[in-house]
Amino acid sequence: MSTKRLLHTWQRRSEQRVYECRVFTVRRDRSFFSRDRAEHDFHVLECPDWVNIIPLTPKNEVVMVRQFRHGTRALTLEVPGGMIDPGDASPLVAARREMVEECGFDSDDVRPLGAIHPNPALQANRCHSFVAYDVAACAEPTFDSTEETEVVLVPFDEIPDRIRDGSITHALVVVAFHWLALGT
Amino acid sequence: MSTKRLLHTWQRRSEQRVYECRVFTVRRDRSFFSRDRAEHDFHVLECPDWVNIIPLTPKNEVVMVRQFRHGTRALTLEVPGGMIDPGDASPLVAARREMVEECGFDSDDVRPLGAIHPNPALQANRCHSFVAYDVAACAEPTFDSTEETEVVLVPFDEIPDRIRDGSITHALVVVAFHWLALGT
Repeated sequence: MSTKRLLHTWQRRSEQRVYECRVFTVRRDRSFFSRDRAEHDFHVLECPDWVNIIPLTPKNEVVMVRQFRHGTRALTLEVPGGMIDPGDASPLVAARREMVEECGFDSDDVRPLGAIHPNPALQANRCHSFVAYDVAACAEPTFDSTEETEVVLVPFDEIPDRIRDGSITHALVVVAFHWLALGT
Repeated sequence: MSTKRLLHTWQRRSEQRVYECRVFTVRRDRSFFSRDRAEHDFHVLECPDWVNIIPLTPKNEVVMVRQFRHGTRALTLEVPGGMIDPGDASPLVAARREMVEECGFDSDDVRPLGAIHPNPALQANRCHSFVAYDVAACAEPTFDSTEETEVVLVPFDEIPDRIRDGSITHALVVVAFHWLALGT
């Protein structure tokens, strides 16, 4: 049931990339709104698509990573994830690569859970979530010069409590667990 | 159980604000890593904290808003939400204000669900989620010059299907529904 209909539209008249760094580009769009018949500026972030993946062991433990995050300047507890690289053939390939790199665990039973917009107000990119069943240790984690992760096995049944108590505080990790709970 | 311990630390040596706009500031941090004993640059977004709120009617419908989002350049279906303004006395006050402004619904039974980091890799800010029970229409939605929302009542029982089918695609909205499902 709708109580009020959208009447007006936006047309983008111009765009300009105003700041670039390794993980995003800031773009300023100038868009025309049919209601006030004026142009307005909006800033958006161009980012590659992201992935994350819930690795489950045969004992139903989640293989998680603890790492320092420069946004919050604190340690977080997350499932493996990251940016899709240009060389990744698909989001699934990227997710499996991140799982092996960050955790040193692998599985060939990786299934898609869903894709979400991290923030449609600011970004066009999506985060693709996966679950991997029957993962096993296959290698030591590999880091680039600025990465270091600690692998932590968390019983799957404890995940809701870890979200409630704030141990898991990354929105996109919570979304991955929500997809899994939905049984998609 | 941990299989590998974090050994190294990060120290921020300097910071510089490199781009500012209405909704975020881009900051470049230069940080020293004890492992390679070198300095590295990281870009982060400074944003105010955000809020969102699930308004539930006495008939157990969710009052949602459809609006154009400039990040994805598409319409989204969301619960009300936005930035905490300097004049908001608390996150709860901000959430209730957004509910009234965007939907024209109100309630004095507003309860906190939890707070999440939208993206700890890039941002320090948090999104605070709330639920409002027994909401009732109180006013017409009010918009600033660049806002327009359509109010949509969605039966609460249909929310999982709307997430599965991609009608609800905003990560922070999914997190709010996850908090509610957890019964926090």
